[in-house]
Amino acid sequence: MAVDLYPSRKGQESRIIRRQDPVVHRNPEFSDGPLSDRDLQQFEQNGYLMFEKLFNDDEVSIMKSELQRTMDGNRDREADDVIKEPGSNEIRSVFEIHKDSGFFQALSKNERIVKAAQQLLGSQVYITQSRINFKPGFKGKEFYWHSDYETWHVEDGMPNMRAVSCSIILTDNYEYNGPLMLIPGSHKWYVCCPGETPKDNYKSSLQKQESGVPDNDSMRWLVDQADGRIDRATGPAGSVLFFECNTMHGSAGNISPYPRSNVFFVFNSIENKLTDPFSGQSPRPEFLANRDNVQPIIPNKDRLQNFTNRIKR
Amino acid sequence: MAVDLYPSRKGQESRIIRRQDPVVHRNPEFSDGPLSDRDLQQFEQNGYLMFEKLFNDDEVSIMKSELQRTMDGNRDREADDVIKEPGSNEIRSVFEIHKDSGFFQALSKNERIVKAAQQLLGSQVYITQSRINFKPGFKGKEFYWHSDYETWHVEDGMPNMRAVSCSIILTDNYEYNGPLMLIPGSHKWYVCCPGETPKDNYKSSLQKQESGVPDNDSMRWLVDQADGRIDRATGPAGSVLFFECNTMHGSAGNISPYPRSNVFFVFNSIENKLTDPFSGQSPRPEFLANRDNVQPIIPNKDRLQNFTNRIKR
Repeated sequence: MAVDLYPSRKGQESRIIRRQDPVVHRNPEFSDGPLSDRDLQQFEQNGYLMFEKLFNDDEVSIMKSELQRTMDGNRDREADDVIKEPGSNEIRSVFEIHKDSGFFQALSKNERIVKAAQQLLGSQVYITQSRINFKPGFKGKEFYWHSDYETWHVEDGMPNMRAVSCSIILTDNYEYNGPLMLIPGSHKWYVCCPGETPKDNYKSSLQKQESGVPDNDSMRWLVDQADGRIDRATGPAGSVLFFECNTMHGSAGNISPYPRSNVFFVFNSIENKLTDPFSGQSPRPEFLANRDNVQPIIPNKDRLQNFTNRIKR
Repeated sequence: MAVDLYPSRKGQESRIIRRQDPVVHRNPEFSDGPLSDRDLQQFEQNGYLMFEKLFNDDEVSIMKSELQRTMDGNRDREADDVIKEPGSNEIRSVFEIHKDSGFFQALSKNERIVKAAQQLLGSQVYITQSRINFKPGFKGKEFYWHSDYETWHVEDGMPNMRAVSCSIILTDNYEYNGPLMLIPGSHKWYVCCPGETPKDNYKSSLQKQESGVPDNDSMRWLVDQADGRIDRATGPAGSVLFFECNTMHGSAGNISPYPRSNVFFVFNSIENKLTDPFSGQSPRPEFLANRDNVQPIIPNKDRLQNFTNRIKR
């Protein structure tokens, strides 16, 4: 097993250690991406970058109808990769959409996002997890603070911090419909969480995370480092948020009438493939953490409108 | 019993009716209050008014220490008027603080707020309900949309819409620590809610309201009337929010480290005293809805600093 640079859930008390990896993995071979020096500096400093309307309204409208079609197609399918609201048949997430041999697969290779990921990670990339999310209005549940990397490291064996999440937002995100909240600079620190990982933790953690939850003192400390700031990913539909795998984030519930939906791809460096989980337990299923037949993505130049016309209905 | 202008929880389907009462009850006798014509117009239009730092930092600091003292004094008291967090001994609210014969009683008579209430309600006023609220960081619970008037009418027999809530915020309210959300203009409409009122409803409704909850269609309609806007009562400590008794409001949970606390007085017109509850049930207890020995408030000119020095400890 690889050296555990980021021990967590080892039964110890909570503590905070420094990040051991670069944030932007600069590599001349991938330096001609879409991100400016200023973008890279901002990402390095804050741990995230928001691009307003990276996709235009027509593209968003295609994505929304494809999301609806995928939701509808999965409504009666009972499977681990389809997450429903507790106590109802309403779908909240569908996983592994980048393998649908259709629209979302093409979108996952779109050069607008892939080249940005390559530039940040300094290498070719692949997708370690993908999903579409639909959060209803009125009753959207809160998601408590967490670092995705903590879970991906402990439960999936991701060795280093060299992955970036890309969230394409398909509905306007306002201050009042439960936007993602991020703590600027939190990606530079790692909260070693108390507790251990229960067996088959993923079956409940996708609805409510109980392991790998940072304690209040660590959260206060991280917010203090950010001079008290907590940022929100608000913006119009079509905007794209890139956030570093270790950025501390969460969201409040949504009692507004406005639902929220997004497409979510996690790009990992091809040099950072998953090993055995550092929890010592069995790996999580493929739909949560891709291991089989991992290949670097060849970025796709196709415009989405052209592509969608070619999809067989 | 008085005519029921605003029937609700009568077992019927939900419907929306027009407000039957003025919003600002203009009366020359009370027109020399602190509110400008523009303030009055805004209140009439939106159903709320926020005054930034109506109380200064020194005054806020006194209020916070008095709030703490009141919380501490009630920690071991098991009583209906002390609301604790579910499953813990932490206090969330203490009611009827304007009868404490001390600091909060004086504050409830402070002319800065009383004269504004008189000007809005066009008469002398009294306090129908008061409380201090403490919402912790990290785990502050959401409070779903509701009109206070709906409850005060159905459960307390408040005949007309002629009351105003005054919330003195003692901690900075940010976008990200669960500020009060308000729907502009919603006070001009009344949502007749479905269902009925269970006996002793107040014992559970103070933690989670189940009766008098507006349905999704009505909420969408109200937000549509506001051109999609939902406003948030953000601002620095010492700011004061006046909101009309029928303004639809709620708040999301608070996962930020920042707790929120406020002092809350409901001023009712002396001409709008409570009658028998329109639910046909027994009145709620005195600590939630004052009926005994109701007297109009004589506004108090005392500066808070001077006052607090005179309190016997």
